[in-house]
Amino acid sequence: MVKELVLPGGHQGLHEITHQVATLVAEAGHEEGLCTLFLQHTSASLTIQENADPSARRDLESWLKRLVPEHDPLFTHTHEGPDDMPSHIKTALTATSLSIPILNGRLALGTWQGIYLWEHRHHGGRRRLIVHIGE
Amino acid sequence: MVKELVLPGGHQGLHEITHQVATLVAEAGHEEGLCTLFLQHTSASLTIQENADPSARRDLESWLKRLVPEHDPLFTHTHEGPDDMPSHIKTALTATSLSIPILNGRLALGTWQGIYLWEHRHHGGRRRLIVHIGE
Amino acid sequence: MVKELVLPGGHQGLHEITHQVATLVAEAGHEEGLCTLFLQHTSASLTIQENADPSARRDLESWLKRLVPEHDPLFTHTHEGPDDMPSHIKTALTATSLSIPILNGRLALGTWQGIYLWEHRHHGGRRRLIVHIGE
Repeated sequence: MVKELVLPGGHQGLHEITHQVATLVAEAGHEEGLCTLFLQHTSASLTIQENADPSARRDLESWLKRLVPEHDPLFTHTHEGPDDMPSHIKTALTATSLSIPILNGRLALGTWQGIYLWEHRHHGGRRRLIVHIGE
Repeated sequence: MVKELVLPGGHQGLHEITHQVATLVAEAGHEEGLCTLFLQHTSASLTIQENADPSARRDLESWLKRLVPEHDPLFTHTHEGPDDMPSHIKTALTATSLSIPILNGRLALGTWQGIYLWEHRHHGGRRRLIVHIGE
Repeated sequence: MVKELVLPGGHQGLHEITHQVATLVAEAGHEEGLCTLFLQHTSASLTIQENADPSARRDLESWLKRLVPEHDPLFTHTHEGPDDMPSHIKTALTATSLSIPILNGRLALGTWQGIYLWEHRHHGGRRRLIVHIGE
């Protein structure tokens, strides 16, 4: 089964999408299987991070912003704005696809794991996530 | 087929798990297929690296420790210890899931490739790895 | 279905392989499915990046070269040349495996996405890519 999720445009940062993915997995109805997420963009990415304390996600975001700052004199690809090239780099350093096993009919996430869309643009538009669920 | 591997707690660094995964693949008995690994944690990760010369893995570990040092004044998420926030960042920069094709009944790894659990905490507890093997 | 693609040796940088992968997907003939790529090397990697403006890929390459320079005094694994250890690190920071859903018989890539082999050695030899296509 392949489904498309259109995620609403969001501000720069981590947006939890665990619930939307879990709903698709429940609908698919497999006791065991594999759920693969693929984001159709090169300026936003996917990550699995701690869903308990929001300070962990804020620090993660701040750290990566400092590693890949805007207005780096090295950049030549700048006509789409100062946040464009950092977004491509952050995408390359994180994940465009993620696979999560399905066990007992549910995503086999760890206790503290959530699935996140990581928007790297200041104001990303709608983002398309393709979800494959197989046995 | 979905199996759970409980990996014993280890010190910070790369721990080879190729043998444990290969054993599950042999048990599954598929001539061709796909083996997907998913780690249920956000302070340890997965990587495929050179299994020949241990100096490559030591340098990799040292380099990443220097890139993401402890006691960074940027961190606010510090109550779980100085190695906690660096662990989340290192996890985001590496992999939580990995997929390896199965060919001729075996993992289709390259000659010099090994699969590693990358423990980012000083003393990680037991780590749960979920293994999906499909056709 | 598992196939092996032997990619010709190339210079350091990003080499588009979308066409070769799409050809295998067309041959497999699945309306829906999942295509997983696995690179059998630890000094080259895979990434999905913008295929429109080559300046984005050049900046990405330059940025990563500056982050992981050669001749770092930290490196002890140097007997295979100054580009060896940076190649292992760049591989760990990017991807060894990637999964892309198949929809309507084609790779469900976004409009601006291309699949790239990222050669990290100055002169990589032939690179082996294992492609798994499943339902």
